[in-house]
Amino acid sequence: MGYRVAIVGATGAVGRELLRVLEERKFPVDNLLLFGTRRSAGTELSFNGDDIKVKVLGKRSFSKSDITFFCAGAAVSVKFARHAVDTGSIVIDNSSAFRYQDDVPLVIPEINPEDMEYHQGIIANPNCTGAIAAVVLWPIYEQFGLEKVIISTYQAVSGAGSRAIQELENHSRSRLVGIYLKPKEFIHSLPFNLIPHIDSFEDNDYTREEMKVVWEIQKMFHDDSIKVSVTAVRVPVFRAHSEAITLETKRKIRPEAVRKLLMRSKGVEVVDEPKANRYPMPLTATQKYNVEVGRIRQSLVFGEKGIDLFVSGDQLLKGAALNAVQIAELL
Amino acid sequence: MGYRVAIVGATGAVGRELLRVLEERKFPVDNLLLFGTRRSAGTELSFNGDDIKVKVLGKRSFSKSDITFFCAGAAVSVKFARHAVDTGSIVIDNSSAFRYQDDVPLVIPEINPEDMEYHQGIIANPNCTGAIAAVVLWPIYEQFGLEKVIISTYQAVSGAGSRAIQELENHSRSRLVGIYLKPKEFIHSLPFNLIPHIDSFEDNDYTREEMKVVWEIQKMFHDDSIKVSVTAVRVPVFRAHSEAITLETKRKIRPEAVRKLLMRSKGVEVVDEPKANRYPMPLTATQKYNVEVGRIRQSLVFGEKGIDLFVSGDQLLKGAALNAVQIAELL
Repeated sequence: MGYRVAIVGATGAVGRELLRVLEERKFPVDNLLLFGTRRSAGTELSFNGDDIKVKVLGKRSFSKSDITFFCAGAAVSVKFARHAVDTGSIVIDNSSAFRYQDDVPLVIPEINPEDMEYHQGIIANPNCTGAIAAVVLWPIYEQFGLEKVIISTYQAVSGAGSRAIQELENHSRSRLVGIYLKPKEFIHSLPFNLIPHIDSFEDNDYTREEMKVVWEIQKMFHDDSIKVSVTAVRVPVFRAHSEAITLETKRKIRPEAVRKLLMRSKGVEVVDEPKANRYPMPLTATQKYNVEVGRIRQSLVFGEKGIDLFVSGDQLLKGAALNAVQIAELL
Repeated sequence: MGYRVAIVGATGAVGRELLRVLEERKFPVDNLLLFGTRRSAGTELSFNGDDIKVKVLGKRSFSKSDITFFCAGAAVSVKFARHAVDTGSIVIDNSSAFRYQDDVPLVIPEINPEDMEYHQGIIANPNCTGAIAAVVLWPIYEQFGLEKVIISTYQAVSGAGSRAIQELENHSRSRLVGIYLKPKEFIHSLPFNLIPHIDSFEDNDYTREEMKVVWEIQKMFHDDSIKVSVTAVRVPVFRAHSEAITLETKRKIRPEAVRKLLMRSKGVEVVDEPKANRYPMPLTATQKYNVEVGRIRQSLVFGEKGIDLFVSGDQLLKGAALNAVQIAELL
């Protein structure tokens, strides 16, 4: 008794992780359909021992699917998701296409599983940066309340897809022999550099990536009163996003209480033994389901109602594929 | 009519920059003495067309020097700086050895040149991360007042010295062919990773690097009431430190006013045309005397009394060698 599952964008960075997560978590799949662009069609991907051929996506692709995961960017979701819903499939969309629509639940199973109930065929998966922050902030919000959240991000290239990963690798290699290659996937050269610009700029001079985190935390927490400000920065790291977070709570809070609280919270792993040189890092957070959180300390700015902390989370997993599969598991 | 100048730690990352800055700014040098460890002794460094041999440092090295720059770490400064002062040399110390002593001025010429007056032979050069933030914060502090400053850093390896630069280069190269080398200069492997740990941990679980920024901004601004909190993170960048800064001011502030103010401030360059993809980056800030500042926007957390911004500054220059020479120029 399983589901007929389809994956759109199966050969991309998130699509491949999704296959692996479905396998690892033994999601009950009766039939699996993989879709990609014309360029990737014909590629064979392995799932539970079978090689499955990637097909070209079309409007009629969804008639044999109960659940369709969209992992191919907002444009593809806008064009095809409604067709999937019309043929009776439930869509779990990894793009930002529908996230801010009132009738589309935006869900992290550890935070707001009850929002699943109002779906009209489409359930949105949150932005990776927002998801990694939210899973750590939620237990704190529930117990201490949140007034202000200030986030500076250190975002890996995997958030920008497979070709971005390749570009960082190839261009780093060139750079180390003194050759600067012109970037294609990024606006500027990324090896041994930082780019404080992800997605387009909004009218308020924040990037859309930064605003997504604000909008999505407020939507998932059902609380527009939390003030959130974000600086999103691309760093030359292959995988796992990190974030330095400073927060002001409504009630008094102590680092030790935060550690205890997060140790029993789902989706997070407390890695906070500074004297043993243990704290969150991309190196250790990569390939982990849980988001690492550490460097937990009383904020010098907000005092007894403030905490500074640092998180690293695999944005292809909790920030994308894992969360999507967890949503499917709730169905 | 010039000065007899000595440089301790001449072959290090900061020492070499110092030579270049003295040359470029035509500092009046009558005689130049270079000192290093036994290992670097005998190395010849070029200055104004002459090759000058590096000598081994000893207690009697300073008798022919009017100004001695110490660029060799706190232990060397503690051991030798008093000897230099005793033989009549003025010491400009790049280490943290004396920065927090009441009789040692900590000076950024754009901020507190008047503090030079109370020196007792030693003038301290600020921490690179603090200096880069301070030069941008000072004009804002003067005009709008500062309540709170929240800083997340993205620190290049050059702040950790020449061997650290070599390690990032060599280990990145190895990593790209699948070989992980054990780090020596860093606690963890840095290529394609981040390390939220610079210097040792203090009792409050902030690192000493983080606290230096707090202490030094308060000392240079002569204002203990400014609340500052820092998360210091090492990133795989060769040169130029970046910082995401959120600040709350005492008076109402607008991004446009900050841009105008900083455009006429010394030591900073406004690089803030997001729609033309221009903002501060290590790639463009490297080798620049001025600190780049951009991404200036109204803070979503502090509202009309808040600003978010991003800075990149060459920490070997404004954060070290340039500032040291500027101090010497004030003498």
